[in-house]
Amino acid sequence: MPSSMFLEIIRSEGLAHLSYLIGHGDKAAVIDPRRDCRIYAQKALGHGARIKYIFETHRNEDYVIGSKELSELTGAKIYHGKHLEFQYGLPAGEGEEFELGDLVLKVLETPGHTFESLSIVLFDRSSGDEPIGVFTGDALFVGDVGRTDFFPDRAEEVAGLLYDSLFSKLLPLGDHVILFPAHGAGSVCGESMSEREFSTLGYEKRFNPALRKTDRDAFIKHKISEHHDQPPYFRQMEKYNLEGTAAPLRGTPMTFPLDADEFEAKVKQGALILDTRSPEAIGGALIPGSLGIPLEMIPSFAGWFLPYDRDIVMVLHDFGESEKAVRFLLRLGYDRIAGFLEEGLFAWETSGRNYETIPSVHAKDLVGRIEAKEEFTLLDVRKTSEVRRGKLPGAVHIYLGELPGKLDRVPKDRPVVTFCGSGMRAIIAATILKKSGFDKVENALGSMAACSAIGCPIVQEGNSAG
Amino acid sequence: MPSSMFLEIIRSEGLAHLSYLIGHGDKAAVIDPRRDCRIYAQKALGHGARIKYIFETHRNEDYVIGSKELSELTGAKIYHGKHLEFQYGLPAGEGEEFELGDLVLKVLETPGHTFESLSIVLFDRSSGDEPIGVFTGDALFVGDVGRTDFFPDRAEEVAGLLYDSLFSKLLPLGDHVILFPAHGAGSVCGESMSEREFSTLGYEKRFNPALRKTDRDAFIKHKISEHHDQPPYFRQMEKYNLEGTAAPLRGTPMTFPLDADEFEAKVKQGALILDTRSPEAIGGALIPGSLGIPLEMIPSFAGWFLPYDRDIVMVLHDFGESEKAVRFLLRLGYDRIAGFLEEGLFAWETSGRNYETIPSVHAKDLVGRIEAKEEFTLLDVRKTSEVRRGKLPGAVHIYLGELPGKLDRVPKDRPVVTFCGSGMRAIIAATILKKSGFDKVENALGSMAACSAIGCPIVQEGNSAG
Amino acid sequence: MPSSMFLEIIRSEGLAHLSYLIGHGDKAAVIDPRRDCRIYAQKALGHGARIKYIFETHRNEDYVIGSKELSELTGAKIYHGKHLEFQYGLPAGEGEEFELGDLVLKVLETPGHTFESLSIVLFDRSSGDEPIGVFTGDALFVGDVGRTDFFPDRAEEVAGLLYDSLFSKLLPLGDHVILFPAHGAGSVCGESMSEREFSTLGYEKRFNPALRKTDRDAFIKHKISEHHDQPPYFRQMEKYNLEGTAAPLRGTPMTFPLDADEFEAKVKQGALILDTRSPEAIGGALIPGSLGIPLEMIPSFAGWFLPYDRDIVMVLHDFGESEKAVRFLLRLGYDRIAGFLEEGLFAWETSGRNYETIPSVHAKDLVGRIEAKEEFTLLDVRKTSEVRRGKLPGAVHIYLGELPGKLDRVPKDRPVVTFCGSGMRAIIAATILKKSGFDKVENALGSMAACSAIGCPIVQEGNSAG
Amino acid sequence: MPSSMFLEIIRSEGLAHLSYLIGHGDKAAVIDPRRDCRIYAQKALGHGARIKYIFETHRNEDYVIGSKELSELTGAKIYHGKHLEFQYGLPAGEGEEFELGDLVLKVLETPGHTFESLSIVLFDRSSGDEPIGVFTGDALFVGDVGRTDFFPDRAEEVAGLLYDSLFSKLLPLGDHVILFPAHGAGSVCGESMSEREFSTLGYEKRFNPALRKTDRDAFIKHKISEHHDQPPYFRQMEKYNLEGTAAPLRGTPMTFPLDADEFEAKVKQGALILDTRSPEAIGGALIPGSLGIPLEMIPSFAGWFLPYDRDIVMVLHDFGESEKAVRFLLRLGYDRIAGFLEEGLFAWETSGRNYETIPSVHAKDLVGRIEAKEEFTLLDVRKTSEVRRGKLPGAVHIYLGELPGKLDRVPKDRPVVTFCGSGMRAIIAATILKKSGFDKVENALGSMAACSAIGCPIVQEGNSAG
Repeated sequence: MPSSMFLEIIRSEGLAHLSYLIGHGDKAAVIDPRRDCRIYAQKALGHGARIKYIFETHRNEDYVIGSKELSELTGAKIYHGKHLEFQYGLPAGEGEEFELGDLVLKVLETPGHTFESLSIVLFDRSSGDEPIGVFTGDALFVGDVGRTDFFPDRAEEVAGLLYDSLFSKLLPLGDHVILFPAHGAGSVCGESMSEREFSTLGYEKRFNPALRKTDRDAFIKHKISEHHDQPPYFRQMEKYNLEGTAAPLRGTPMTFPLDADEFEAKVKQGALILDTRSPEAIGGALIPGSLGIPLEMIPSFAGWFLPYDRDIVMVLHDFGESEKAVRFLLRLGYDRIAGFLEEGLFAWETSGRNYETIPSVHAKDLVGRIEAKEEFTLLDVRKTSEVRRGKLPGAVHIYLGELPGKLDRVPKDRPVVTFCGSGMRAIIAATILKKSGFDKVENALGSMAACSAIGCPIVQEGNSAG
Repeated sequence: MPSSMFLEIIRSEGLAHLSYLIGHGDKAAVIDPRRDCRIYAQKALGHGARIKYIFETHRNEDYVIGSKELSELTGAKIYHGKHLEFQYGLPAGEGEEFELGDLVLKVLETPGHTFESLSIVLFDRSSGDEPIGVFTGDALFVGDVGRTDFFPDRAEEVAGLLYDSLFSKLLPLGDHVILFPAHGAGSVCGESMSEREFSTLGYEKRFNPALRKTDRDAFIKHKISEHHDQPPYFRQMEKYNLEGTAAPLRGTPMTFPLDADEFEAKVKQGALILDTRSPEAIGGALIPGSLGIPLEMIPSFAGWFLPYDRDIVMVLHDFGESEKAVRFLLRLGYDRIAGFLEEGLFAWETSGRNYETIPSVHAKDLVGRIEAKEEFTLLDVRKTSEVRRGKLPGAVHIYLGELPGKLDRVPKDRPVVTFCGSGMRAIIAATILKKSGFDKVENALGSMAACSAIGCPIVQEGNSAG
Repeated sequence: MPSSMFLEIIRSEGLAHLSYLIGHGDKAAVIDPRRDCRIYAQKALGHGARIKYIFETHRNEDYVIGSKELSELTGAKIYHGKHLEFQYGLPAGEGEEFELGDLVLKVLETPGHTFESLSIVLFDRSSGDEPIGVFTGDALFVGDVGRTDFFPDRAEEVAGLLYDSLFSKLLPLGDHVILFPAHGAGSVCGESMSEREFSTLGYEKRFNPALRKTDRDAFIKHKISEHHDQPPYFRQMEKYNLEGTAAPLRGTPMTFPLDADEFEAKVKQGALILDTRSPEAIGGALIPGSLGIPLEMIPSFAGWFLPYDRDIVMVLHDFGESEKAVRFLLRLGYDRIAGFLEEGLFAWETSGRNYETIPSVHAKDLVGRIEAKEEFTLLDVRKTSEVRRGKLPGAVHIYLGELPGKLDRVPKDRPVVTFCGSGMRAIIAATILKKSGFDKVENALGSMAACSAIGCPIVQEGNSAG
Repeated sequence: MPSSMFLEIIRSEGLAHLSYLIGHGDKAAVIDPRRDCRIYAQKALGHGARIKYIFETHRNEDYVIGSKELSELTGAKIYHGKHLEFQYGLPAGEGEEFELGDLVLKVLETPGHTFESLSIVLFDRSSGDEPIGVFTGDALFVGDVGRTDFFPDRAEEVAGLLYDSLFSKLLPLGDHVILFPAHGAGSVCGESMSEREFSTLGYEKRFNPALRKTDRDAFIKHKISEHHDQPPYFRQMEKYNLEGTAAPLRGTPMTFPLDADEFEAKVKQGALILDTRSPEAIGGALIPGSLGIPLEMIPSFAGWFLPYDRDIVMVLHDFGESEKAVRFLLRLGYDRIAGFLEEGLFAWETSGRNYETIPSVHAKDLVGRIEAKEEFTLLDVRKTSEVRRGKLPGAVHIYLGELPGKLDRVPKDRPVVTFCGSGMRAIIAATILKKSGFDKVENALGSMAACSAIGCPIVQEGNSAG
C-alpha cells in the first residue's frame, strides 16, 4: 500500500463555503474548517492520516469556523494571519512553510478582504519547485474577487491592498497554478462568482471580470462603488471567530419532535416559529406568526431575520429534514433550537388549531390585475441590482433583507402580492407581512421568471412609481 | 466467534408488510420476501449466513413477492402451499421440516385466507421440543385475523377453514408461542390490527377481538358480514405471484429528473402525472391534470387509481424522495416510471406554465358555511365504517377508492369541499375532481379530526341526507 | 400517518449486552443504554419520537452505562431501583407506572442479582390489561438466570431473593409474556444462555435449565455452587455506574494513525501495545512486548488484562477497524487510547524494526510431539468447566484470565505450546508468555476443536498430571 | 435553488483508474466509467441531473469498462474514437461538441497509446472561449505519458503519434488548462506517475519528466526503449471492451459463505483458492494449494495468475471484506466467484483439516544466513528496474508476474526465501511456490525496505550471480 496524496473539497451547502483537506501519507492539513468539523478528521482517517495543521485564511464573517473544536479532536495546530489579534491559535507570517510528506504549504499574506488575510501556496516538491496550487480564501474567487466593504473608513486603502495582493502576489505565481478559493457561486462573499468551482490563475487572468481592471486606480474605484449586503448576523460571526467562543458541538446537535401542545407552549414562552417547508406548502397552510424560510434558503436568509436570544421551534416537511435544518442553523451560530412540530403541519391541523393560507398568484393573473387597475400593492423584494434590470409596472421595491425595518412603507389597508425572481424570496416576505399583521397577502409563485417566460410588460427602474 | 441465532423483521413501509429473516450459524431462511429483495441476502451476509430456504405463506394479493429474484441471487429454494398450482417453486406439505442449525421450521397448513395458506412453526431443538414461535402469514395477526372475502362463492367454507386453522391448529401450539404475522397496522389485509407488532398466542387468545367468537358458527357469520376493500391492483398482484412473472429488479430501479419541457412532452405522449407532495403543497399549486397522492399514502392508494399500461411521471417534494417513491410503486408492480419533474414544482412555476390551486378550508369555516347554508357539496371520502361513527350534516359520502366510478353523483355546477379523517385522503379526492373537470374544489385540511377537536356538530348516518 | 408502536433491540456486540428502545407515537423509553448512546436518540428520532425515560435494571458491573449522557442529550429522566444509593437519577419503586402513549411500563422489584434489581413490565392498554412483555435485566435470561455471586457474605440470601423474584414475581406474569433480558449468549453474566435471544416466560418455565430447580433450597444450593469469573475491570464499572462519573463521549471518540517512530515513542513513554489482529497474523509477526487480543475478543478479555492508568496503542488489521476497536474499549471504560500503528504491521516491518513470531502447531503434530515425549509444556488456558470435559494428556491447566498471576507455574526453560478450545484464547496466552520473557512459544491453532475432529487421545481430569 | 456545475472524480482503487462525472444543471456526462457503474447515475441524481453522454477515451486494456450497462440504466449515448471498430456505441470525431448547460465537451483526437485515443476538451462558455480543462485518457498523466507498447510492429509510428498528440495538440491548449487523466499512481498504464492526481498543462510542461524530451526523435527513441508489463488478462479486457460483451452487473454481485465441507467440495470440483488475507496471516496458516494475494494487491496481480475458466473460492480476513474482494475481481472480468470460507481460516482450523505455514524471515536473519553461507535460494521477485538499483548478494531474480512460467529456474531441493520491496509481493511468490510443490518456503517480511533501513550489504546487478 503506497502512501498517497489527497485533496478533498468539503462544502457547506447554501453558504457556498469551500474548505479543503489536503495531505500526503499520514499527515494532513485543513483550510478553513466549518463548524461541524468531525468530517475532516473522519476523512483524514479514511486516508490513514491525521490532521496536523489548520489554516484560517482570514477571520470569517459569514459562518462559524470550526478550528478550535477540530484542534481539540485531533491535536492539530491552528494558524491565522498575524495582523489581527485572535484569542486562540498561532500567527503565521509571510513565507512560513509547513510540510505534509512531499507537499509544502507556504504562507502568502494577501490582505484586502481583511487586513490579516492569508493565501496558502501549495508545492509538491517530489515534482518541482514551482507552486501547483493556491488556497486564496476570500481574495480571489472563480469569476470574482473578494469584497472590500468591511472597513468603510479605509475603503480605498483596503481596495488597494487587494489589488496588490491579486496583481503582485497571486497572479505572478503562474498561469499553471490551480485556484482553490473559499467560496463558490451563491455566497454572500461575492456577487458574480462562477458556478464552476475549479479554475487556474491563468484562466482567471483571462476571464475573471473583476481582474479586467488592471489599472490600480480603476480597480479601486470599481471596488468602492460596489454594494454588498451585510446581514446583521455578521457581527456575531466576527465575534465568535475572533474569540473562538462558539460552543463546541461534540457530535452533531440533535433536535426532537414536539406535539402540538408542547409546540404551542414553547411559542407562548417566547419561541420563534421557523417554517422551512416549500413555498407551495407554506402557502397552503401555515401557523399564524410563523417566519417562513424554505429549507435551502436558510443559509442565505436566516441571518437576516433570526435573533440569537430566542428559542427557535421549527415546522419541517418531515423529521428527516431536521438534521439538515439544524446543521444550517448551527453554521450561523444559532444554538437555541428547541424542537420541531411532529408530522409536518398535520398534527397542528388535526388538533383543530388555526392556520392561515397565502394564496399563490400566477404571472398572467398578476398582469391581469395590474391591467384592471385592481387596488393592491405589488411588493418586489429583489435586490436593487435585479430591479434595475426591469420590473413590473407599479411595483414597490424593498429588498427582502430590509423589509422588517421598512414595513411602514407598505400600506396595511389593501392586499399585498409579494414578488421576487422566482417566488422563493417572495414567500419569506409574505410570511413577514402576515406575522406583522397584514391580513391579505398573496405570493407570486414563479414571479419574474414566469413573467419573462410568458412575456409580461416589463418597465425599467425610473419608468414607474416603485 | 461463536455462531449465533438471528431473527430480523424486514418491513415494507406503507404496506405494513412484515417479512422475516431467520437463521442459525451459516444458514438462513426468509418468510415472504418483498420485491426489492437484495436486503435479505445482505442482512444474511451480515450474519455470515446464506439463505437456503424461502417460504411463501400464501399467494399474496397486495404486493409483488420477491421470491424468484431472491432465489436467483442466493440459490435458495422456494416453498409454497401445495393447494395452488404455482408456476415456480416447490410444494411443501403439512409436517415437512427444514433445518437451520439448531432451528427447525415445520410446515403447518392453515387455510382460510386462501386455500393454500401455510404457517411455519419454529423450534429451537437446542432448548426443547415445543415450538417457540410461529409465522402465521395472513391467518392470524396481532389484534385481528385474516380476511376471507376472496372466494365469495365459497364464503362460508373458507371462513370455516380459517376458524379451524386458528382454533384447532394455531392456538393449540401453546400460550408461550411468539407470533410472527405477515402484516401490521395499516395493512389492507385487516381492519383492526394492533399498532403493536409483537405478541404471543396466549396474549392473542385473551385479547384479540377476532378470537372472541369461539363458536364456529358465530365466527363464520361474523367473517361473512365483514366488508373489505379490493383495490383493482389486487388482480395484477395475484397474477404476478402465481406466475412469478414480475420483472426482476436486479438493483433498485432508478428514475431521473426531467426539465419542464421534457416533462410536458411525456405528458403529451400519454404519461400520467403523480404528485406525491404534501396536501398543503399540492393545495398551494399543482399541475393541471395531476393525480395527487402524498408520498406515504402511495402504498395504500396508488393501487386504486394508477393504470399498469401508462407511463407515470412524478412531482416530488425533492429528488431525495425519488428512491422512496419508486420503491413504493415497484412493490405494487408499477414499473413504467418515466421520470420526475426537476426541482419540485419550481421549474414548472418559473417556466410560466399554468398551475392550479386547491384552497384549504378550516373546520370552523366549514361549519360556518354549512350553517350559512352556502351552496356547495361537502364530499366525505372516508370508509363506510368511519362515516357510520358520525359525519358533518349534509355531507355526501363516496369512498375514496370508488370515487372515479361515481363522479356522476357529484354535482359539477357548484363548489366541492373534500373531507376525510384528517385531510390526507381528501386531497387525493380533490385532485381527482380537478382532473375530472370540477372547477371549484377546496380541501378540508384537518377534516374530521379538527371537527372533533373544536366540537363541530356531528350527525349519525341516517340522520342526514348524506 | 398513524402514530405507531416500536420496539428495537440495540446490541453491544461482544458484551452480548441487549438494550431496548420502546415507544408509541412521539414518546419513547430506553432500558439499560450502552455508553455510546446517541444511537438511541437517533433511532427514536427515526420513529418521530423523543426519549422521555431511561431505566437501569440494576447497577451493571460488566460495562459502562450511558444513562447520564443520554439524559443530557434528550432531557429524559433516569430511574433505578431504590435499594442502592446512586449519585444520579431518580429512584423508582414497586408498582410505579410510566406511560408512552398506549404503552405502560410498570416497575417490578426483582432483587437477587443485586439488591436493587428491577424488572420493567410492559402493558399495551389499547389491547388488554395483562402484560405483553417484561424487561428482566439480569434476573432472567433465555436459558439461564442471573449470577448471585457478587455478595459472597450474603450468598444464600441473594440466591433466595432471586428465587423469589423468579418464581413469585416474574413467572406468575403469565406464560404468554415475552421476555426481554439484558444479555444474550456470550455474556460474562451467565454461563449457559441460549444463542436464541427471543423467548417467553412460558417457554422458559418449560425449558430453562436454571428454572428446573423449583425447590427453593435446591435452587439456592445450586446457585451457591456456581463459579463465575470476576474480571478485575468489574470494580471500575461498578464505580462508574454508581457515581455516573465516566466521561461523556459526545460523539464517538476517534483515534489516529501513528507512524513507526511515533508509535515507538509512545511505547517508550509507557504505552501498552494491544495487537487486535487475527491469531494467524499475530503468529506470523508481532511487535515484541505486545499483548495480542483478536478484535472480537476484546469485550470478553480486555477487562482481564488492560490497566486504566496507561496509554494504549493498537496494532490493527487495517485502519477501518479502529472505530470498532475504540468502541469495544470505551464500553469497558478504557479512554486512554493513544493511536494505532499505520498500515497494520507493514510500517513496522519495512522500517527494519524487530518482530517476533509465534509458530502455529497443528493438532496432529501436537499429538506426535506428545507421543514422542518431546520436552515442552502444553499450556491449556480454557475454563475449568471445559477442562473437566477432557484434555490432552500432560496438559498444564491455568485459566487464561488468571495467567498473568500464575506465570511462575510455567517452566521458562522449555518450549510452551498454548492451547484452548479453538486457538483464539491460546494466542492471547501466547502473547502474554512472550511479553513475560518466554522465548519459545507456539500456538495450537485449532486446539481442542481440531483434536476432537481428528480423534486425538483425550483424558479426563485426574487421569493426568495436569 | 440555482442549477450548478459539478465535477467528481470516481476512482477504482488499486487499478488507480480515474473516471469523471461532469455536468451542469440537469445534464451530465461520464468519462471512462468503471464496470460497477450505478455510482455515476446515483451521483448524477444527487446533483439533480441525468447522464446524457458517456465518453471512452480509448479501448481500455486494464479493466472492464461499464459504458454499456450505464447506457442501459440512464439512456445515455456512448462515444468512442472512430479509428477502431467498436461493436457498440457511436464514433466521435475531431472537433465534435457536446453541450451540458454552459459546459461544452469538445473531442480532440490524440492517438499514440492507441490509434483511436481521444481527449475531451472542456469549455465553460459562460466564462470564456478558451478551454478550462482536458480529459486526456492514457495520453498524458500527472508525471508521465501513455504507454506505446501495444503495437510492437508499429512501435515508432505510435510513439511518434503520441509525441504529436502531446506537443501539437494537448500542450498548446494552454498552461492554464487543468489536466484530468485516466490513471494515477500505481496504475499499470505508466511507471512514474505522480502520487498527486491534480495538475495543469503548464505544470506538466515544466515538470513532467516524460515531456522533457522535446525532440521528436529523442522522444520516440525513449518510448521504444521502455519496458512495460502486459499481464495475460489484458487480452480478455481488450476483447470485452471492443465487443461490449462483459455481462452487465445490475446491482453489485454478491458472494456467500461456505462452511469447511462446502468449501472443500468446491475445491475438489476444480475451484481455485484465493487467499486475500495479510502476508502475516497467510504466513501464520494457509490452506494447502492456495494462491495468496493480499486484498489490496488483487487489482495489480490477480490478472497475472487467475484463469477465467475456473471457479474461485476465497479466504478472507472476515466476511466484511467480501464486497471489496468481489468488486476488485469483477473489474478485471472475473465473474466466477463461488463463495468464501466462513470465519476466515477459523472454520478450517477447528475442523482439524491441514494447514501449512510460511515462516517470516527478518532482514537481519537473512543477512546472517547469507553470511553464514547457508544453503538456500533467495528469490527476488521485484521488477527488473528495481533490481537494477541494487539487491542482496546471491539473490536469484525472477519477476513475480513471470514466476509461474519460470519455476524450473528455482531449485526444489533446498529452502527458498522469497523477497521483494516490502514482503507483499514476496508472499504471493511464496504461495505460488508452495502450491507448486516447494516444501520449505519462507517469506522476507520487510524485504528490501527493511534491508535498506538496517543497512544490509547491497550489490549492484552484475556484481552477483543472480
